[in-house]
Amino acid sequence: MLTESEREELALQMLMDVLGAISESKLEEVEIIATCPKDELVEKLKLHGGVDLKLRLKVRVKEDRRGLNELLNDVIGKEQEPVLIIMADIPLATPRSINELIEHEEVVVIAPGRKGGTNALFLRRPYDFSVSYYGISCAEHIEMAKKRNLSYAVYDSFFISTDIDEIDDLIELLIHGKGFSAAYIRSIGIVLRMDKNLKTRALIERS
Amino acid sequence: MLTESEREELALQMLMDVLGAISESKLEEVEIIATCPKDELVEKLKLHGGVDLKLRLKVRVKEDRRGLNELLNDVIGKEQEPVLIIMADIPLATPRSINELIEHEEVVVIAPGRKGGTNALFLRRPYDFSVSYYGISCAEHIEMAKKRNLSYAVYDSFFISTDIDEIDDLIELLIHGKGFSAAYIRSIGIVLRMDKNLKTRALIERS
Repeated sequence: MLTESEREELALQMLMDVLGAISESKLEEVEIIATCPKDELVEKLKLHGGVDLKLRLKVRVKEDRRGLNELLNDVIGKEQEPVLIIMADIPLATPRSINELIEHEEVVVIAPGRKGGTNALFLRRPYDFSVSYYGISCAEHIEMAKKRNLSYAVYDSFFISTDIDEIDDLIELLIHGKGFSAAYIRSIGIVLRMDKNLKTRALIERS
Repeated sequence: MLTESEREELALQMLMDVLGAISESKLEEVEIIATCPKDELVEKLKLHGGVDLKLRLKVRVKEDRRGLNELLNDVIGKEQEPVLIIMADIPLATPRSINELIEHEEVVVIAPGRKGGTNALFLRRPYDFSVSYYGISCAEHIEMAKKRNLSYAVYDSFFISTDIDEIDDLIELLIHGKGFSAAYIRSIGIVLRMDKNLKTRALIERS
C-alpha cells in the first residue's frame, strides 16, 4: 500500500511525533540512534521543524549500524543515569504516558508492544540491566529483572503499545493520531473504510 | 484453530476473568447482559467458581437478545447512578485499570479497543448519554460527548484495549494472561512459537 519512499517518510514523521511527545514530557535530553547516515537524518529533521524541538529538548543523533541488543547493551553498560529506551515507531505516545512511565518507583519499567514487544523500557540503573530485543522481549525483560533481583513494573499503555509496522496498524494511527504521521498518511490518501458486514471494524484503503 | 465448543468455553473463561478483575476493583455490583439463556449461564458460572465471586461482588444475570445499542440505551436512559459498560472479552483487564478508569473526574471516560472499538465506557451521568457500538465506536462516543457538552477523557490502557476475537489476539493472552482464560487455552494445547526469521514476533500454534 505504501511505496518505499512513503514508508521512509512515514518513519521520519513517526520519529517527529515521538520526539514531540518527549519534548513535552519531563525528559530533557534525547539521543537518536540511527542506522542511516547521521547527516542525512539531521538534515531531514531540520527540514521538518526539528529546530523547534531544540528549544525544549537537547537532541543528539548517533549513527550505529550494530544490532540493537549489542549497541544498546554497550550504551547502558556505561550509563550511570536513568535511561528510557523508546522505539521511534510509536507515534501515539503522549507526554502523559511517558511521564507516568518514568514516575514509577521500580528499577525496571516495561511498556509492552503488541505481540510480545517492548516499546518502551525505563531503567533506573541501566548498568545493572541487559536488554534482549529479539523474541518475546517483554517476557525476556521481565525475566531479566527477576534474574538480577531488580524490582520491576509493567506499564499499561495502549498508546505506547501501538507500534506501526503493518498496514492494519494505520487504523489506530488514523483514529487516534493527532500528530505529524497521522497528517502525513491522510495527505497521501490513506483512509478508513467501514464495512459493517465484516467482523473487522474498520479497513484501511487508499483513495 | 478452536472448535465451536472451545470458543464458547473460552468466552466463559474470559467473562470469569473480567468478573474477577471487577470483584477486586472498587465496583460492588455487576449486571451481566447475556444473549444465551440466563439459567444456563448462571449454572456455568457456578460450576466455574462463580460462587466465590459472590462474596465480594453482587452479580446479576439478565437475558436480553436485543441489539447492543438498543438494549444499552434502554438501560442507561433509566440509570441515575454512574455506570461502567465493560466488554466480556477483555481478559487482561486488571483491578487497577478498572479503578483508574472510574476515578477520572470527567463525565464520560472511553477506553478504546483496537481498530476503533470501545472496550470500556464509564458514564457518570448515564441518562445524559447515548451509546453507538457499531462502526468506529470510540470516535462516535467522543463525538457524542462533545455534542452533548459532556466532559470526556480517553483512558489509555493496553490491557483493556486487548479484546480477544482473532487468533492472533491469543498471543497477548498467552504472554500477559494470568487468569482463567489463559490457563484454559494453554490446557487445550495453544502455544506460542517464535520465528525469528519472520517479521511477526510470535505465532500461535496448536501443539
